[in-house]
Amino acid sequence: MQYASWMEESGESFIGEMLKAAQNPSMISFAGGLPALELFPDQALQRSFQHVFEEQGKPALQYAQTAGHPQLRQWLAEQHKHNGKPVKIEEIAVTTGSQQGLSLLAQTFLDPGDVVFVETPTYIGAIQAFQSFRAQMMMIPCDEQGVIPEELEKKLKLVTPKFLYLIPNYQNPSGKVMGLERRIELLHVAKAHDLLVVEDNPYGELRFEGEKSPNLIELGDNVIYLGTFSKVLSPGLRVGYVVADPDIINHLCQTKEGVDLHSNNLTQRAVLEFLKEGLLPGHIQNLRTVYKERRNAMVRAVEKYLGNEVEMIIPSGGLFLWARFKKITNSFDYVQETIRQNVLYVPGALFYPDGRVTSEVRLNYSCSTPEIIDEGIQRLARAIKG
Amino acid sequence: MQYASWMEESGESFIGEMLKAAQNPSMISFAGGLPALELFPDQALQRSFQHVFEEQGKPALQYAQTAGHPQLRQWLAEQHKHNGKPVKIEEIAVTTGSQQGLSLLAQTFLDPGDVVFVETPTYIGAIQAFQSFRAQMMMIPCDEQGVIPEELEKKLKLVTPKFLYLIPNYQNPSGKVMGLERRIELLHVAKAHDLLVVEDNPYGELRFEGEKSPNLIELGDNVIYLGTFSKVLSPGLRVGYVVADPDIINHLCQTKEGVDLHSNNLTQRAVLEFLKEGLLPGHIQNLRTVYKERRNAMVRAVEKYLGNEVEMIIPSGGLFLWARFKKITNSFDYVQETIRQNVLYVPGALFYPDGRVTSEVRLNYSCSTPEIIDEGIQRLARAIKG
Repeated sequence: MQYASWMEESGESFIGEMLKAAQNPSMISFAGGLPALELFPDQALQRSFQHVFEEQGKPALQYAQTAGHPQLRQWLAEQHKHNGKPVKIEEIAVTTGSQQGLSLLAQTFLDPGDVVFVETPTYIGAIQAFQSFRAQMMMIPCDEQGVIPEELEKKLKLVTPKFLYLIPNYQNPSGKVMGLERRIELLHVAKAHDLLVVEDNPYGELRFEGEKSPNLIELGDNVIYLGTFSKVLSPGLRVGYVVADPDIINHLCQTKEGVDLHSNNLTQRAVLEFLKEGLLPGHIQNLRTVYKERRNAMVRAVEKYLGNEVEMIIPSGGLFLWARFKKITNSFDYVQETIRQNVLYVPGALFYPDGRVTSEVRLNYSCSTPEIIDEGIQRLARAIKG
Repeated sequence: MQYASWMEESGESFIGEMLKAAQNPSMISFAGGLPALELFPDQALQRSFQHVFEEQGKPALQYAQTAGHPQLRQWLAEQHKHNGKPVKIEEIAVTTGSQQGLSLLAQTFLDPGDVVFVETPTYIGAIQAFQSFRAQMMMIPCDEQGVIPEELEKKLKLVTPKFLYLIPNYQNPSGKVMGLERRIELLHVAKAHDLLVVEDNPYGELRFEGEKSPNLIELGDNVIYLGTFSKVLSPGLRVGYVVADPDIINHLCQTKEGVDLHSNNLTQRAVLEFLKEGLLPGHIQNLRTVYKERRNAMVRAVEKYLGNEVEMIIPSGGLFLWARFKKITNSFDYVQETIRQNVLYVPGALFYPDGRVTSEVRLNYSCSTPEIIDEGIQRLARAIKG
């Protein structure tokens, strides 16, 4: 018995290890990307599910269309624009969370050895999805706004990637935001080189301050947009979606048919009920308030306990704070010690497909109260300072 | 922009086309594999979902473990044996329907060009899953009980496949069942050649007559078992599972992490509630009674309207009747005419990875009443006889 060759490269799942360590009840975890449990609108969702059972009944339990529940697709289409034009239902496919969107894109576009451009650093789940389809990832240099257009252009002269993957809003892991000017410049380069851009936007609605910039897909063609309800509603329901040209949607659905036939029918209908009740905007407002408080608490705690030890990027939205320890070389070396101190973080190396040595760490603040954040950063300081 | 090379080979999705044609309300569809809508236990499931919301609340909406909800895995482990021994929780992973089980297996085991052995004919969804990971499928000759051990042995002397895929109970599309003797012989050959066997068992519980044989996984090692609640409870909920050695489960979960992180958390818990209520056995009994009636109705109608035109295999369980038209060459040629007559079937060619010309058809009886079955076969006879 022999596994596929790509698996040998990926070793033990660090995320899996972290999830297990996180089960220790005295552990404070800054490692995950979990939304705040206590804020889930479970009662409203319960009513949505009940409503679907009562009003729609048995058809909600039957096989369904691969592209998703038509009324949910319609609702999603109405929320988006594509290069200034209204989005049509043919431009939407529902996915089993937006991780599936990434995996479907990889499967649909990548031949073994194909090149994908990513930000430096980039999202772990994207690295996993692309690696498992044998992509070669190339990191494009970034500044405080993300991908630098000139650097992108330089790389495009050397290689032709299948697509560029990025998170323009509150990037995972760096928390960076791409400004409007930068978005326009980037799309300009993409257009000139016929480059497909994959815009992943799980955190865009979680804005604490600053102006909202239009999504890349609103500004240009050649963009595939990944959306999700995981961060604004519930990740356990696994409802994400893709917005793209109908031909791309058709190809993604052809892939999806072989992958899981379609996403959970009942859940898609229940999420639509929730959306139609108009409950999402108020809930998002609530998330913003609470997460901003927690972001503030984490920034304060880092300054208090690690002031001289770290440089950090203060995020203006999203779930993560990205920090670099100035006096250590490799943040991976401290994982065991921090587990002993009952606190978890993700070492920065995991966000670089080349697995470089780095003293950076990603800290999540969304699922801990300010008090717990304070205690956790104190523990972290203890572990790092020894 | 360029799609992955495997996509070019797969052309338009016939299943997708059929699903669209099936939306015409005057269409009688024998093409799908849909369970009977009117039998879904929607009220009991509504109570299960409500119970989860009330008793477990918010944690049911959070991210969850990739391998599945622990209590559901535990329940599933208790239902199975592996080579005579009780199954442990480490041997179970929950999947997003059992189509995902197939896709995860392909992704986890196959390098491009790897060989997979399949039955002749075999399940379309498996062909899709294996093709999209660039497998080379080799069809093993079958008799009325499925794969012929001597033929399997002959092929094993020529090539080493990654695994053999089969459906021992009420095979899709042929409806065949593998007897106990044959199972033992097959596992004997597999063991001698260190061959991994993938046992897909969506229909095993839908038995109309005859003795139940033990699953392959109960009889030997080197077996990966795919189970699902799609045919006995609800396909729209997308809950399937894999039983295999812990090392295989770990690798499948490593793959699944990049594919969709985990399956719907809330739904897994609700399905477990339903199971714990002890409602499944009675429901399955009901399905058997109704599907047997429909099987009988279809056999009667085929004899009545197509008596001299076809040879059929009368299935002793499952959802499908497999028939060969004696006076035509290619059942694909009649699809347009049958759509005009408002009846759908699946042409046999789709179940052969080599796309051979065949006059066979697959007819589904589970989702039509005896009256509709009679009318539909009458229409089919009209289309075929001209």
